[in-house]
Amino acid sequence: MVFSSKLIEDAVNEFAKLPGIGKKTALRMVLQLLKKDTGEVDAFTNAVSTMRHEVKFCKVCHNVSDADVCEICNNPGRNKAQVCVVENIRDVIAIESTQQYNGLYHLLGGILSPLDGIGPEQLNISTLRDRVQNHGVEELIMALSPTIEGDTTIYYIARQVKDLPVNITTIARGIAFGGELEYADEMTLARSIAKRLPIDNYVSIKE
Amino acid sequence: MVFSSKLIEDAVNEFAKLPGIGKKTALRMVLQLLKKDTGEVDAFTNAVSTMRHEVKFCKVCHNVSDADVCEICNNPGRNKAQVCVVENIRDVIAIESTQQYNGLYHLLGGILSPLDGIGPEQLNISTLRDRVQNHGVEELIMALSPTIEGDTTIYYIARQVKDLPVNITTIARGIAFGGELEYADEMTLARSIAKRLPIDNYVSIKE
Repeated sequence: MVFSSKLIEDAVNEFAKLPGIGKKTALRMVLQLLKKDTGEVDAFTNAVSTMRHEVKFCKVCHNVSDADVCEICNNPGRNKAQVCVVENIRDVIAIESTQQYNGLYHLLGGILSPLDGIGPEQLNISTLRDRVQNHGVEELIMALSPTIEGDTTIYYIARQVKDLPVNITTIARGIAFGGELEYADEMTLARSIAKRLPIDNYVSIKE
Repeated sequence: MVFSSKLIEDAVNEFAKLPGIGKKTALRMVLQLLKKDTGEVDAFTNAVSTMRHEVKFCKVCHNVSDADVCEICNNPGRNKAQVCVVENIRDVIAIESTQQYNGLYHLLGGILSPLDGIGPEQLNISTLRDRVQNHGVEELIMALSPTIEGDTTIYYIARQVKDLPVNITTIARGIAFGGELEYADEMTLARSIAKRLPIDNYVSIKE
């Protein structure tokens, strides 16, 4: 692309560094910002800049936070005996958006993946053991991807805490609501039959 | 979406105001910026902010510019007798990227579209007439969208300058290079047969 303005070119190049943004999309964004009032553009750049400079990571669960300890860990109404182990911030947002979970979280920062050079030292596993040992955690709910890496990570963490009195569970796998049986993969379908639920249970979930 | 950080939430909301960016994509961008060094994020916000505050519009052709008159209008090597009339900045970038055009441009800022409330007063048409009248323009090359609005705009401009000694042309319509005949629409195909070229001409274009 040939630009007649260095200022536009610089802004387009910066946008094009973002994930999934090509030059054409970047140009569309820059031209859109060019049409807006300077106040609106200042609000955009200030929000981004402040976010990067001031956001912290919670000392307890490693989630993003505006303070040293995040809102969720600090909330006295939440069940501190339950900790949901997830990979990253996006998983927390997804689970929080269900408004059905009232425990705390622990963000591993990834899952074990030797091919990508991610071993136990790269993940927040030692702090998880410390929470289980010293902070009254009774249940670890593993909410990791249903992949070999996810299962390996669950197995590794289970071994790390096997001397401690903690209950380890994983989120249920099965046919999604609204999912069609015939399109479900064999493994999920087989597992959902093996782990079938009594009808009472099903009704109470629906209510 | 439920966020555990107001700072993240603000940045996501600002990104989500950009065209074609939903909340999930915005979150992906924010988390990507969060992973980068503060220096890189500062470079991003500074480029965007500087662009919005300092970019100007060329007094001659209305293109974006770093100075009062843009690089293209100021370039002594370009043919000032030819002016290519386009809708917006994106069209200039597309034509400049071909590296085949050596004249100047004139950006209308849109095309006539009564349904969207865009009449002649909303477009840069009076300055175009002034250029033709007082600055030695010999040819106006109309490079507008092949739509009813585009054709109306061409017709309107032609009438506005019909008392002046200027030659008006439009870019060629036809089958695109690499295009398959059978998939071309009837109007384009009919026109490309009616406006067929002598084979000499074709060979010289290919060379």
